[in-house]
Amino acid sequence: MSQFKKMMLVGLTPLLLSGLLVGQVNRVSAAQHQNGQHKNTETTFAHFNKSGLLLMPKNYREWIFIGSPVTPKDMNDGNPAFPEFHNVYIDPASWAHWKKTGQFRDGTIIVKELVSVGAKQSASGNGYFQGEFLGIAATVKDSKRFAERPNYWAYFGFNGYQSKSAEPQPDESCNACHQANAAEDNVFIQHYPVLRAGKPGK
Amino acid sequence: MSQFKKMMLVGLTPLLLSGLLVGQVNRVSAAQHQNGQHKNTETTFAHFNKSGLLLMPKNYREWIFIGSPVTPKDMNDGNPAFPEFHNVYIDPASWAHWKKTGQFRDGTIIVKELVSVGAKQSASGNGYFQGEFLGIAATVKDSKRFAERPNYWAYFGFNGYQSKSAEPQPDESCNACHQANAAEDNVFIQHYPVLRAGKPGK
Repeated sequence: MSQFKKMMLVGLTPLLLSGLLVGQVNRVSAAQHQNGQHKNTETTFAHFNKSGLLLMPKNYREWIFIGSPVTPKDMNDGNPAFPEFHNVYIDPASWAHWKKTGQFRDGTIIVKELVSVGAKQSASGNGYFQGEFLGIAATVKDSKRFAERPNYWAYFGFNGYQSKSAEPQPDESCNACHQANAAEDNVFIQHYPVLRAGKPGK
Repeated sequence: MSQFKKMMLVGLTPLLLSGLLVGQVNRVSAAQHQNGQHKNTETTFAHFNKSGLLLMPKNYREWIFIGSPVTPKDMNDGNPAFPEFHNVYIDPASWAHWKKTGQFRDGTIIVKELVSVGAKQSASGNGYFQGEFLGIAATVKDSKRFAERPNYWAYFGFNGYQSKSAEPQPDESCNACHQANAAEDNVFIQHYPVLRAGKPGK
């Protein structure tokens, strides 16, 4: 045990024994990270209102980035399904669970932020370079809330960054394609090397 | 002041007064985040050995993702400068400083992870989809350690994931191009919407 942990235990023992601090200590412990590694395993990042609408996720650009496919307009007759870069993030608690189990836990939220192509040439060569943010979509897995959805995933599209909430899309709009084409549990991990590398045993 | 903070102060006061815990408490406090938002402002993420070589960064895939240009082989005569996707991350403490000041602090480390193109077609359409990790490069800003480098940035390339350290590249290899072509302080923020959106006042 580290000297710091020993000191913390000595200092906190009276309060821990009184029962006053236990819940709070757990909460703080769950929110720590060290050397940039997220450590929390308890926190919920998918929040819903009383009507069952998903609330607009916050701070998702500080979650765990898992991949960035680009389906440019000029490679899709000007009209890709999702223009154009898709910056994809998983919430930190579900990432911690993934690293431990290789499974998407109940409560997993994955955000897809759409970004325009801003340039096709830069000092590093020809290619595709991100431009401006266009909007976000999200998916949440929850075996209780979405017990009737295939693999328990529901999909949400937000109508602009000022949206406060979004309703689940019909299964045929999103879930069917994810279920049919994603490499694992509705998630396109074949395109997400961060998830593949984060799996236990990798 | 929250009830938790009050309790912490009561419980820790004897140790704080003794001077034993002050440094440790600061370190822990600096490493917290809430709702997925990194809160630390103190931690150092760029570490060097006694010879001045940059040590291989750890856990950078859990830092703040800032953008992912792709310079594919098939758009660069088979030989791009950086094949192919470049997943770019900034350390959490420097991100916190950027959000507050719009400046890259001393100690900023930015990691560029190179990823192959794994597919050019998926259910979402035609495009470029990430394949396998190929390696990393990094840059560090430090006005003392790199006082002679343009804008105080030094650039490092690691020779494979098993590398323990890397030496600074000559200025003409990396810095010159960054200085000439990057939109701000050697960083290509024109391709990094996360940085642009994170600037104060945006």
